[in-house]
Amino acid sequence: MFTLTELQKTIEEKISSLNFDKEPQGLYAPIEYALTSGGKRIRPVLVLAGCNIFSETIEQALPSAFAFEVFHNFTLLHDDIMDNSPMRRNKETVHKKWNANTAILSGDAMMIEAYKLLSDLPEHSFKKVFSIFNKTALEVCEGQQYDMDFESREEVPEEEYLNMIKLKTSVLIAAALKAGAIIGGASEKDADLLYQFGINIGLAFQIQDDLLDSYGDTSVFGKKTGNDIITAKKTFLLIKAQQLADAQTKEKLNALIKDKSMDKETKIASVIEIYDRLDIKNKAMTAINAYYKQATEHLDKVSGDDAAKKELFNFASKIMKRNK
Amino acid sequence: MFTLTELQKTIEEKISSLNFDKEPQGLYAPIEYALTSGGKRIRPVLVLAGCNIFSETIEQALPSAFAFEVFHNFTLLHDDIMDNSPMRRNKETVHKKWNANTAILSGDAMMIEAYKLLSDLPEHSFKKVFSIFNKTALEVCEGQQYDMDFESREEVPEEEYLNMIKLKTSVLIAAALKAGAIIGGASEKDADLLYQFGINIGLAFQIQDDLLDSYGDTSVFGKKTGNDIITAKKTFLLIKAQQLADAQTKEKLNALIKDKSMDKETKIASVIEIYDRLDIKNKAMTAINAYYKQATEHLDKVSGDDAAKKELFNFASKIMKRNK
Repeated sequence: MFTLTELQKTIEEKISSLNFDKEPQGLYAPIEYALTSGGKRIRPVLVLAGCNIFSETIEQALPSAFAFEVFHNFTLLHDDIMDNSPMRRNKETVHKKWNANTAILSGDAMMIEAYKLLSDLPEHSFKKVFSIFNKTALEVCEGQQYDMDFESREEVPEEEYLNMIKLKTSVLIAAALKAGAIIGGASEKDADLLYQFGINIGLAFQIQDDLLDSYGDTSVFGKKTGNDIITAKKTFLLIKAQQLADAQTKEKLNALIKDKSMDKETKIASVIEIYDRLDIKNKAMTAINAYYKQATEHLDKVSGDDAAKKELFNFASKIMKRNK
Repeated sequence: MFTLTELQKTIEEKISSLNFDKEPQGLYAPIEYALTSGGKRIRPVLVLAGCNIFSETIEQALPSAFAFEVFHNFTLLHDDIMDNSPMRRNKETVHKKWNANTAILSGDAMMIEAYKLLSDLPEHSFKKVFSIFNKTALEVCEGQQYDMDFESREEVPEEEYLNMIKLKTSVLIAAALKAGAIIGGASEKDADLLYQFGINIGLAFQIQDDLLDSYGDTSVFGKKTGNDIITAKKTFLLIKAQQLADAQTKEKLNALIKDKSMDKETKIASVIEIYDRLDIKNKAMTAINAYYKQATEHLDKVSGDDAAKKELFNFASKIMKRNK
């Protein structure tokens, strides 16, 4: 069984061994920039960790692990254009440092590179992993489309919101685990259990991300920004508040969210004051804990190496506690 | 052996059988729009025609044929954003009809759909076709990057220009033929000969496209636009003229090309006047004929069904003569 530290080291070694000093530089330099700009390498670690529950030879999963990381970073390049985000991981985004055309084309090339990496899949797993990869990649696009569609809607039902974050975030995490499991030789049942573990961890993770943005505590979650409130983002907190508020409070909340002239700090404080009155923080924590519990239950049922399962569980807990 | 008309009919039936009436509509409606907006279906016909030289069961090549068409249309969606093109096939481009974000994301989904179609490849050909598809897709991105890089350069050597059009246009045509041949059970040697046929036909086709833009004759080539001259595009004609002109003429030519204030018709006429003095039209036709001849020689060496080879040759000739 490999420890989390060993898995992470394996990924970083793979990344630093890559050579993007190729022509045309205009295409490949932004790819190198994106792939070496840090990030938590969650998806490739999950591929290796998923594999390691069923097999000691995790090297066979390394190209696919990296395919998931390259694919994830491709989505970031394109999402950052669509969201007009200037910064990522404390560095300029590709479309700001270069331009939108560069971010489009280098992103395209990254998606193809991700598929190229899948060529090295072991024969027994190729068709299955290729199929889950295709399905998932398309779902991620659907999630991004729903997320953009939500921007022009005043209210989004909780169910639609959960479906969106599932598509945008959870399925790639779940597919990374499932791909690793398949490569490691898992039964279909075990691979699906790990997939469900990933779906639930992903949902917990995303709702926590929403919570952090409004209630961040540096000692527990990281830094609070209130950015979601300022950008009128449909979050679990806002949707829950709209759901639970009486007519008058809801009207006030929606007016606040739409108000573009109000001082930022006042706006954040006023929205949070409504959240507090509706006990939204606890509602979010209850949802997070429920998904976390469901994730754990799925993992418990997986028949594989217990120490490797424990290591995966610890990794998930570590992500959940984030900066702690 | 299937006739060209039969191959084209097979493709159109496949396209009209697709269902893009899926959610989210914001993602799938632009894909349907792009795929049903016409186009000559050159690449999927080439996959089927390549297959048909070695096999009568062209149905096995249909998903891949369509993968090439979807991939090609994905590149058009993204290229049209990068080139800021408002129209394609007499209709608004996706980024004009919707917006750039839509063209980015629907384009991404199309690339994934193209890979999904490859899942249906017959087992014997999967690895080989997947590999040529990946290699080619990346080369197409490289070609687009070189094309954009050329915009900021005053002069581009002929060799670099030829490499760019090879990457941007020829490799996908060549790969479509090779993929079809592999699916049909061709030997590696025959598949490579067809690839070389495609490379040379692609080069001839692109240079003819350049020629058409400045010397188009409605009775022979289609409509002359002079658009390449107005947009200062690096074409075979311009590069050849820069190469052959004496110092004084070259200076005049470069000044004309850079001049943004001159009346368009005067500018086009002045540049063509220089081209005429340097006999550029004949130089281009000589190059086209040379590539066309090389293409024919490669096709002649292919050992497969002669009637199907003839049908492919007729298709290539038909493309070359375009609107005639």
